[in-house]
Amino acid sequence: MKDFFKVTDLDQIFTYISKFPVVNSETIPLPDAVDRIVAANIVSNVDLPDFNRSTMDGYAVRAASTFGASDGNPAYFNIKGSVAMGERPGFFIDSGEAALIGTGGMLPDGADSVIMVEQTEPIDERTIEVYKGIAPGSNMVEIGEDIAKGSFLLNCGQKIRPQEAGLLAAFGHESVNVYKKPLIGIISTGDELCSVGATPNPGKIRDINTYTLSAMVQKAGGIPLIFGIVKDDFNSMHLICSKALAESDMVLISGGSSVGVRDLTIKVLSSLSDSRILAHGISISPGKPTILAKIGNKAFWGMPGPVVSAMIVFTIIVKPFVEHVKGLAAGESHSWKLPALLMRNLSSSQGRTEFVRVRLLEKDGILWAEPVLGKSTLINTMVKADGLIEMGLNIEGLEKGSEVSVILL
Amino acid sequence: MKDFFKVTDLDQIFTYISKFPVVNSETIPLPDAVDRIVAANIVSNVDLPDFNRSTMDGYAVRAASTFGASDGNPAYFNIKGSVAMGERPGFFIDSGEAALIGTGGMLPDGADSVIMVEQTEPIDERTIEVYKGIAPGSNMVEIGEDIAKGSFLLNCGQKIRPQEAGLLAAFGHESVNVYKKPLIGIISTGDELCSVGATPNPGKIRDINTYTLSAMVQKAGGIPLIFGIVKDDFNSMHLICSKALAESDMVLISGGSSVGVRDLTIKVLSSLSDSRILAHGISISPGKPTILAKIGNKAFWGMPGPVVSAMIVFTIIVKPFVEHVKGLAAGESHSWKLPALLMRNLSSSQGRTEFVRVRLLEKDGILWAEPVLGKSTLINTMVKADGLIEMGLNIEGLEKGSEVSVILL
Repeated sequence: MKDFFKVTDLDQIFTYISKFPVVNSETIPLPDAVDRIVAANIVSNVDLPDFNRSTMDGYAVRAASTFGASDGNPAYFNIKGSVAMGERPGFFIDSGEAALIGTGGMLPDGADSVIMVEQTEPIDERTIEVYKGIAPGSNMVEIGEDIAKGSFLLNCGQKIRPQEAGLLAAFGHESVNVYKKPLIGIISTGDELCSVGATPNPGKIRDINTYTLSAMVQKAGGIPLIFGIVKDDFNSMHLICSKALAESDMVLISGGSSVGVRDLTIKVLSSLSDSRILAHGISISPGKPTILAKIGNKAFWGMPGPVVSAMIVFTIIVKPFVEHVKGLAAGESHSWKLPALLMRNLSSSQGRTEFVRVRLLEKDGILWAEPVLGKSTLINTMVKADGLIEMGLNIEGLEKGSEVSVILL
Repeated sequence: MKDFFKVTDLDQIFTYISKFPVVNSETIPLPDAVDRIVAANIVSNVDLPDFNRSTMDGYAVRAASTFGASDGNPAYFNIKGSVAMGERPGFFIDSGEAALIGTGGMLPDGADSVIMVEQTEPIDERTIEVYKGIAPGSNMVEIGEDIAKGSFLLNCGQKIRPQEAGLLAAFGHESVNVYKKPLIGIISTGDELCSVGATPNPGKIRDINTYTLSAMVQKAGGIPLIFGIVKDDFNSMHLICSKALAESDMVLISGGSSVGVRDLTIKVLSSLSDSRILAHGISISPGKPTILAKIGNKAFWGMPGPVVSAMIVFTIIVKPFVEHVKGLAAGESHSWKLPALLMRNLSSSQGRTEFVRVRLLEKDGILWAEPVLGKSTLINTMVKADGLIEMGLNIEGLEKGSEVSVILL
């Protein structure tokens, strides 16, 4: 019994992402929009700020009236009035005139700059001396200096971080049109599985993948729909797979570690209406026996059973599909990798892209990645790991001290 | 008007973290527990797995019966039976006996290893030939090999990632005792502010900080309670601050950019019952006019008004307090920084720890940090930024090409 399927390379798998449509959009309140994806371009309809705004406590003046002022030759200003915060000043500033203004106040017409209160000296209640010349535009924000009217605020497919939420607030968006969170159906298969609430009989183990995958779906911005454990028989699997497919935007079925069950999964997926198997086996280790089917316009994944393999396949392969389906624009997914030095030699199985669990350790300011070895059924190895490093298709191994890029878990 | 308060160093501020108690705990369903903090140590009550488990499709045997087997000198095995997945085999394996077993199946008593099906050849329905010797323990996971009974699964104060959710599932925890999400009250102050839903009159701007801070609170694992905008007068502020304090585990009041309002904030915070001002001014730039009060046993922050300053103060100073209060153990907060090369020279204001907004750009495999300069009232600079770099108290500046550590935003 040799390899019974032709594996697909990782590069090839990722070309399938665009085959799947993005979910629909919905309008939600701004405070709920953090980490959501904007579903339409948003343009500024006004200048921000839409008035000249002081950035200091001081006096609004015409800069030209300060030119040449120095300690030995002060300029004198007549105090015209005081700017109330949040109101338009009811007066005009002419040459030689000044208005008391607080940080955030609106400059009176005629004024083009603010002189800091520290650089002035009162002469009497109506006059100040100034000892320094300032340039027009000093200590103020001009109309449109933050964002000019008509500029793009956010592009369709952009993620809303706290600063983007603030930007939307600044332009009066109490609610925002975002893509819905994709519903990701999760099924576990295997006659050896029992539910978390049960006490396993001899020979059984509790279903772990439902919980690791459900948590990963949430972190990737989806909503997990848990369909539970299904028996290893065609009819039961066909029933639950049809149901999950109808209710979800994408489905993950994990398990079927033994060859017979893998065969069953592919048989069930193939039997569903409008099904096309895009990949049956992927050149990744661990995780080779992964299946990707396009059923209707939805992705249906046959995930490996061992918990480590399923988590790695999700992180590396499934997550970019979830991000696409949830509306994140290509190029907006900044998954920065952390550089570290490899703590010991590693050999690699050529012909597959291998992902090795690593723990990160900082010593004397240097970040080391220590491989966490162990079978792909051992959850403790994932609990010990902080990240993954990739060893490419044609790499024979990596030497201790090599620089590696860590994908954080 | 010089500095009217004595600033507190960052190091000093962080020593105050332990003055504040951790929130209470609650028991929640496991699928909701991702990113939550475990509120008690959890110990394994059984071995995982609690039976010897095959990791391959093959035959369960006694390894000793294979010793010396080779292509020229095969060992012969009598097939005793077949292991049904998820059940205890009803037979015993003696020397020279084998049982067909799938991946995940329970080894029969007497067997100590699994020989892969690829390394066997059927002779007839009851006999196989084996061409290779294997060691005891091959292709199986032993009892307790993943997690031994009595080991610590999770420590109090540890964060639940997907793998920790899986670990809890493996040990039958349908629900888990975690710390509550802390409630963080958010107030904006300033007569120049109007609500997001309003059209600003001349001289007014919309309240941005409520939305940036609310989003940051959510990302830090808290629940924001929005108290809205309060007028710059003592009685209004006292009322809303008392209310927020009663309903929240921590409060942030932002705004009051002008000196008069800063004075008002400190006056209000000082006037609340059992109040102690721990810091009035912090040696950070931007963000110097930050106030930390301990009122009862809660932290009450006077945050700077300019949006950039407020976001930086939250990221650098407030977030570690939120993480402590939400129960995250010291040392469990892995905020890895990304190394990059500085794209141009930067000068620094000595005597303060300065945080500079940067945009990250990858060119030919090198990650560059490009400073995003601009006034601290300009939200567009935060939208352009991917992270912050720190310039320490006594650094005069950094040269182009220096290695910097980027705190991701």
